[in-house]
Amino acid sequence: MPASPIRKLVPFADKAKKEGKKIYHLNIGQPDIETPEVMLNAIKNSDIRVIEYTHSAGNESYRKKLAAYYQKFGMPVNTEDVMITTGGSEAIEIAMMTCFNPGDEIIIPEPFYANYNGFSCAADLVVKPIRSYIETGFALPPISEFEKLITPKTKGIMICNPGNPTGYLYTREELEALKELVKKYDLFLLSDEVYREFCYDNKQYVSVMHLEGIDNNIVLLDSISKRYSACGARIGALISKNKEVMAGALKFAQARLSPPTFGQVGAEAALETPQSYFDAVTKEYTARRDFVIEAINKMDGAFCPKPSGAFYCIARLPIDNADKFCQWLLESFSHNSQTVMLAPATGFYSTPGAGTNEVRIAYVLNLTDLRNAMECLDVALKEYPGRTVTAPVATADIR
Amino acid sequence: MPASPIRKLVPFADKAKKEGKKIYHLNIGQPDIETPEVMLNAIKNSDIRVIEYTHSAGNESYRKKLAAYYQKFGMPVNTEDVMITTGGSEAIEIAMMTCFNPGDEIIIPEPFYANYNGFSCAADLVVKPIRSYIETGFALPPISEFEKLITPKTKGIMICNPGNPTGYLYTREELEALKELVKKYDLFLLSDEVYREFCYDNKQYVSVMHLEGIDNNIVLLDSISKRYSACGARIGALISKNKEVMAGALKFAQARLSPPTFGQVGAEAALETPQSYFDAVTKEYTARRDFVIEAINKMDGAFCPKPSGAFYCIARLPIDNADKFCQWLLESFSHNSQTVMLAPATGFYSTPGAGTNEVRIAYVLNLTDLRNAMECLDVALKEYPGRTVTAPVATADIR
Repeated sequence: MPASPIRKLVPFADKAKKEGKKIYHLNIGQPDIETPEVMLNAIKNSDIRVIEYTHSAGNESYRKKLAAYYQKFGMPVNTEDVMITTGGSEAIEIAMMTCFNPGDEIIIPEPFYANYNGFSCAADLVVKPIRSYIETGFALPPISEFEKLITPKTKGIMICNPGNPTGYLYTREELEALKELVKKYDLFLLSDEVYREFCYDNKQYVSVMHLEGIDNNIVLLDSISKRYSACGARIGALISKNKEVMAGALKFAQARLSPPTFGQVGAEAALETPQSYFDAVTKEYTARRDFVIEAINKMDGAFCPKPSGAFYCIARLPIDNADKFCQWLLESFSHNSQTVMLAPATGFYSTPGAGTNEVRIAYVLNLTDLRNAMECLDVALKEYPGRTVTAPVATADIR
Repeated sequence: MPASPIRKLVPFADKAKKEGKKIYHLNIGQPDIETPEVMLNAIKNSDIRVIEYTHSAGNESYRKKLAAYYQKFGMPVNTEDVMITTGGSEAIEIAMMTCFNPGDEIIIPEPFYANYNGFSCAADLVVKPIRSYIETGFALPPISEFEKLITPKTKGIMICNPGNPTGYLYTREELEALKELVKKYDLFLLSDEVYREFCYDNKQYVSVMHLEGIDNNIVLLDSISKRYSACGARIGALISKNKEVMAGALKFAQARLSPPTFGQVGAEAALETPQSYFDAVTKEYTARRDFVIEAINKMDGAFCPKPSGAFYCIARLPIDNADKFCQWLLESFSHNSQTVMLAPATGFYSTPGAGTNEVRIAYVLNLTDLRNAMECLDVALKEYPGRTVTAPVATADIR
């Protein structure tokens, strides 16, 4: 596996910190939001005397309640369709191992979550990226473009909705179009929906589980990490109505014995989180998003579409090279002894040369910090030696 | 992956339970021992407000203390040699993915922990089993037998010490012999030592980390699951002084983000567990082992070597077929409305036909329950229709 562009920056960040620079971390999806009290309390008040293995598919009481949670959103999920995993990461890994054979091809719209590469690599899959573009806010590429990539080895499509790193929220029309494609070629449709509850502007959220007539093709991947700001609990889920997939997935789950006990205790309790928690979180992220998008679009030569979900956006900047720029921010730049850490978008593209003038920004800091971070970015863009007059369009960007 | 013989028994166990039969579970390694107070309290008293990702290699404070723990046992382990994993399972999986390429062969003395098959399968490795025999208590097979299996594709050897399912504790001589072999062919030596602190009769425990001069070949796999009766915490470790292995393993660890937060909080505190806890546990397991071994060897036609470690033993019984016998115990047998669930040893052998008259017994119940369970087994062996006059020696068993 190649080292990701974000990880390559870590030593420079460490060095900058040692030099006393304050770094605003907009590079990772670690929210600063507090975990719901009800979840923390369940763990603290648990009366466990022996920390035993749980069922390999997770505690039944939790699976039952989680199915009911999905039903609330109109998703036809039953207890037996749910397997609890060690984080969303394991759900992705097990789904890939279960649904596909070594050498199979899967199509993933890019830019995509960089770790999909690692799991595809472990499952020996060939990722066929399909470009989505900043000009359309990273909307689903035309179905005709998907069809061009389909070969006899194509066995699945993977999406992330709302998207990491784009924040794009797929419309019902886009998902219905994908459904027809999946049906036509009998492909698996894996959908990573861990940002489900981060949708803004009252937009309608459509899950693959809302699509009718392709039950056996759908695998939903989920996680509580972002929903309850509980990334370290390592609790996710793999959901499918395909009995063969669930039986296959269970074998992988049995090999690793069980998901974490305390994470499950907390996750089950977290289902009782009051709506007021989510309302407050949505309000906070909406304000953060609005602030960041406006700030970037005011910067000379910069452009950032306004996403409707998750807590990321991708900005195009007037720079020669995002990897170099992000390193320069840590290594050579400082504004009032402060700087900002961003994720070069190159790490989210499979196509070489794509995303060279784009960065991903995770708006996971409070508004005061975001204001300082955006000020840093504005000053940095003016000082950066590799600044371009207008945001260039890389060759790979031309459609 | 094929379903294991133990898992095939689960529906029969469920049915027996529904019929009101009490089942003594000697089929799984889930100890009944209480988790140390110091570990449970650390989790309950933690002041975590946001359950964040930890470092992908685990919290540094924990890695540092864990290295000190190994040093206490004379193992030259430093903080940077330690990566925290999600259970021992993940340590095995990541080690296999890191050290080997698809198609590589690894030699594993059988009978071995059945899940090694699952992880080898996921890493696309070819397992070459090498038989060890009940007559010698499952001692290490002669090195000449290993050499017969070595081909240009052989890249490693994997052992479990003390052994699951055999309870066998390797001697220094055996480990030194393995060392010479590993050196001669430059192989990786993966050693699963999760039962380290379950050694009886004051026997000396030798780790692969005690072997000198093969630092780059050694990968130690560990877990706190058994040590602190904390199977559900899902905390293990991968330890190696080979920098390339540690760098490769970290990439897999980064893809899955981090090990569980609360498990690490507990595991770090568990290092303060007083010696009196281990003394009591050792005393208890010694008594259980002595009782079980004596009881089995008194049964007509049965034989069980006395293991020096872990909490398992393998018994040869006067039966035609262990899979059938274990199913019959659940389905058709009852003694005072009680029966016993055992693991057919066939699941621990790769060689077809091996272990057909052997079962694995996990002595994880208290002495009263063990007494009842052994009484059940004694009566059952007399009633079982597939009883053989003397314990047969299957063809595959003849050396």
